[in-house]
Amino acid sequence: MVKTDQVNFSTKGNGDIIDITALIADKIHNSGISSGTVTIFIPGSTAGLTTIEYEPGLLEDLPQFFEKIIPSNISYNHDRTWHDGNGFSHLRAALVGPDLTVPFTDGKLQLGTWQQVVFLEFDNRRRNRSVIVQIIGE
Amino acid sequence: MVKTDQVNFSTKGNGDIIDITALIADKIHNSGISSGTVTIFIPGSTAGLTTIEYEPGLLEDLPQFFEKIIPSNISYNHDRTWHDGNGFSHLRAALVGPDLTVPFTDGKLQLGTWQQVVFLEFDNRRRNRSVIVQIIGE
Amino acid sequence: MVKTDQVNFSTKGNGDIIDITALIADKIHNSGISSGTVTIFIPGSTAGLTTIEYEPGLLEDLPQFFEKIIPSNISYNHDRTWHDGNGFSHLRAALVGPDLTVPFTDGKLQLGTWQQVVFLEFDNRRRNRSVIVQIIGE
Repeated sequence: MVKTDQVNFSTKGNGDIIDITALIADKIHNSGISSGTVTIFIPGSTAGLTTIEYEPGLLEDLPQFFEKIIPSNISYNHDRTWHDGNGFSHLRAALVGPDLTVPFTDGKLQLGTWQQVVFLEFDNRRRNRSVIVQIIGE
Repeated sequence: MVKTDQVNFSTKGNGDIIDITALIADKIHNSGISSGTVTIFIPGSTAGLTTIEYEPGLLEDLPQFFEKIIPSNISYNHDRTWHDGNGFSHLRAALVGPDLTVPFTDGKLQLGTWQQVVFLEFDNRRRNRSVIVQIIGE
Repeated sequence: MVKTDQVNFSTKGNGDIIDITALIADKIHNSGISSGTVTIFIPGSTAGLTTIEYEPGLLEDLPQFFEKIIPSNISYNHDRTWHDGNGFSHLRAALVGPDLTVPFTDGKLQLGTWQQVVFLEFDNRRRNRSVIVQIIGE
């Protein structure tokens, strides 16, 4: 069985980290599928998906890390094309990747106790985001 | 239903970024599967998969970024073993990862308008590449 | 068909890289599923999954690379919360990601000849690890 849906939320722009675990868990609950994988996918190229322990310290550390390795205040060739100043957003998104696959059994995501699914907003402005949630299983 | 296939193409060596979106879309079209996930996988350890907006600026920015964080002109322990000078290729590939999973519905990849599936060649020479495309769905 | 299982092993702490390919191959062999994908997932936020050529040089290069971009000897905001000194572990894990999806056909993982599935231990102490292995196919 395959069920495809999406979750929608707003972000405050670059550096914003959204815990989408409950949104994903809800889609699994409503799917009627007991065991399988959920593929979470961002249809866009200025954000990324990963998992973290969602606590205030890391919500500062993670943006600081990306600012260090891919600074927002230098010039990128991408900006020559579009002049929207978000070359850094595209590079960070390419590095982290747009997809995350998580197994679930008995309707429950197989995450660790201190592990949440997070959407990393890299774009340089507020965005309304839709993320695809596709559930495959039995 | 599971269909496993592969796509083949050539690269110009390190820094080459190949847009393989049309190749993947074609395999989905021919699979007879309407909705599901496509798993794209590189059977090798000197290249990576991600998505980007495929435009000329980023095709320069991305290789420059990898050159900055994993330089090609320094010595790696890997080169002690094989003396083929591509230690940097292996590190970049391990960082980006060999797999990408993309949902599709009604035979159509659920990518954003400005988002393409790309193969990042990290090896230090021209390569003929085969990438696995596995489609699961109904 | 969906089969969910786990593999268990011990690590020596940060920098330890475990080749789990044979453990995964064994689960596929025992699943009775011939073709499909295996989703490997870490239920925790201080380790990562990727593939490498498992040879002694890279087993040194990879930890050195992570030490360079996310040093273990500087202070992170995460450590303010928990005081366990593993902020660097969390950042490295978020960067690499907890999931890996590998296709298999005729019961055989579609890896390259010089490519192994590896568990990257980022935590700052020895750990007993359980990793989820979910097989979907026919």
